[in-house]
Amino acid sequence: MPDQEHMKKALQAYIDGFNAGDAAAIVALFAEDAVIEDPVGNPPISGHAALTEFYTNAINGGAKLVLDGPIRGSHGNGAAMAFTIEVAAMNLTIRAIDAMTFNDDGKIIEMRAYWGPDDMG
Amino acid sequence: MPDQEHMKKALQAYIDGFNAGDAAAIVALFAEDAVIEDPVGNPPISGHAALTEFYTNAINGGAKLVLDGPIRGSHGNGAAMAFTIEVAAMNLTIRAIDAMTFNDDGKIIEMRAYWGPDDMG
Repeated sequence: MPDQEHMKKALQAYIDGFNAGDAAAIVALFAEDAVIEDPVGNPPISGHAALTEFYTNAINGGAKLVLDGPIRGSHGNGAAMAFTIEVAAMNLTIRAIDAMTFNDDGKIIEMRAYWGPDDMG
Repeated sequence: MPDQEHMKKALQAYIDGFNAGDAAAIVALFAEDAVIEDPVGNPPISGHAALTEFYTNAINGGAKLVLDGPIRGSHGNGAAMAFTIEVAAMNLTIRAIDAMTFNDDGKIIEMRAYWGPDDMG
């Protein structure tokens, strides 16, 4: 099981990779068979190819991620963070929470993103 | 599927019920067969009797919950919130994120709490 420090660094690297426009750096945090549901309620997507497309599109949309507070760990293989997605060109913000589960290799195996229609402002 | 407003009110009622010392009000938000893992990595507990014991103990420990920001919904049956657990008597704070899944009756069917040893301060 990955330790707390490893998981928190991975979530910070997710934020940093996104803001650097580096989809490959984000996707490298995930296992090849990872499943993401972003947001919860949308059809899950899986696999590095699909994730690369997803994050490339999100980055190209001009979004930046700003942590709302410290990343949380757990007593197990999960970690979570609250953040705000800022899309300056659209004068749009989205408040989100991502919860991630790691595999024994320290890769993210599942990500669930909590944000809905009324979390936008 | 419960609507976003219902889920967010339930999470707010969880906070308010906790701070009012009303374990029954919290437990009433959950389905009888709900499973909670608090924190992730601890053995899950299930059923209203076990949840009542869990929340009664937490309340009796003197903890109060303070939301860190707006509760998040989703495009489906999930909602999440970041908050700080304050235990004044122990001069202790714990930073947590709870992610909840609802059933079609609008009751919480699963709760996963993200906080670990190094989220305490």
